Amino acid sequence: MAATYRALCDHGYAGLTIQRIAERFPKSKSLLYHHYDNKDELLVEFLGFMLDQFETCVPEPEDAEADAMDPESHLRAVLDAMLAEQLPDEHHEFLAAMVELRAQAAHDERYREQFSNHDAFFADRLASIVAHGVEAGRFRDVDPDRVASFLLTTIVGAMTRRATVESAAVDEVRAEVDAYVESRLLAPEVEA
Amino acid sequence: MAATYRALCDHGYAGLTIQRIAERFPKSKSLLYHHYDNKDELLVEFLGFMLDQFETCVPEPEDAEADAMDPESHLRAVLDAMLAEQLPDEHHEFLAAMVELRAQAAHDERYREQFSNHDAFFADRLASIVAHGVEAGRFRDVDPDRVASFLLTTIVGAMTRRATVESAAVDEVRAEVDAYVESRLLAPEVEA
Repeated sequence: MAATYRALCDHGYAGLTIQRIAERFPKSKSLLYHHYDNKDELLVEFLGFMLDQFETCVPEPEDAEADAMDPESHLRAVLDAMLAEQLPDEHHEFLAAMVELRAQAAHDERYREQFSNHDAFFADRLASIVAHGVEAGRFRDVDPDRVASFLLTTIVGAMTRRATVESAAVDEVRAEVDAYVESRLLAPEVEA
Repeated sequence: MAATYRALCDHGYAGLTIQRIAERFPKSKSLLYHHYDNKDELLVEFLGFMLDQFETCVPEPEDAEADAMDPESHLRAVLDAMLAEQLPDEHHEFLAAMVELRAQAAHDERYREQFSNHDAFFADRLASIVAHGVEAGRFRDVDPDRVASFLLTTIVGAMTRRATVESAAVDEVRAEVDAYVESRLLAPEVEA
């Protein structure tokens, strides 16, 4: 999986071959060829592996630590990570590869299932933060699932545009998402 | 260009070949092979052609007709078109192909230039509507370019997710974009 990550960053989806992954694989290369008939089989497994990693790394909102965190700060921390103004070069290369992988889902059911799982996971995490804020009286009485779908869609749009156009203006998008959070989500007591 | 559109709807980017476009081309097929060395050359030209069509079809905000239109209705009409709850089958197939074409921009400069032009055009049109609303006192004193970047990013995200996941929840996204328009854009006089 680490060899796949590095090969994706270096070559993107279009330039990727099992050969190029094997070049970064310290163990027997024949093992790789034995396990996977083609790059898509390996990449679909890679996407499942990534989601497992996310599930381990992104804390459950039910955790004591998350409970202790102010919902507004929690939401802004997620937005800081997902809508960062600048990306390190390696992240940018990986993001470009992910945009290419997601596009495979337009015609390949296996990729579609993986990205459906990815999106469902992130929407669920966002909805939990929003629900937490509504319960705590910090956010207005919004529909957490609706807000989560909207934020996730904007995040996916920013990732897609960052990888595919000259000027994705992610700083502008982030500023306007903050304005949305202030005008739509924050309960009046917090604004005052 | 019409043959390319139909072949894209039927086969998507991955399944597209010059042969399959030629099958839908009423004139001499050798003409096609003579003009284009590969499908990407043809598709990049197709994207430029599409933008020309948009420029003809989407009215300049300076037009008398657009001036006469209430900016809020104008903005909602654009959102109705870009974030429609349901798409006809043919539109869905074309959208899937466009998501695949956009992903080519992650590693191909020619596609990147085309999608940069597409996004700049739509951002400019959205910004003009918002600027018009601010000038008319119907919208708050927001930054039109920032609002446009944000709305365009959400629209690109919705198109991308619609083509790549089981449940893109575009109806939820649209409802929340409407909430954004109400809480962030509409001037207080309009709300009252």
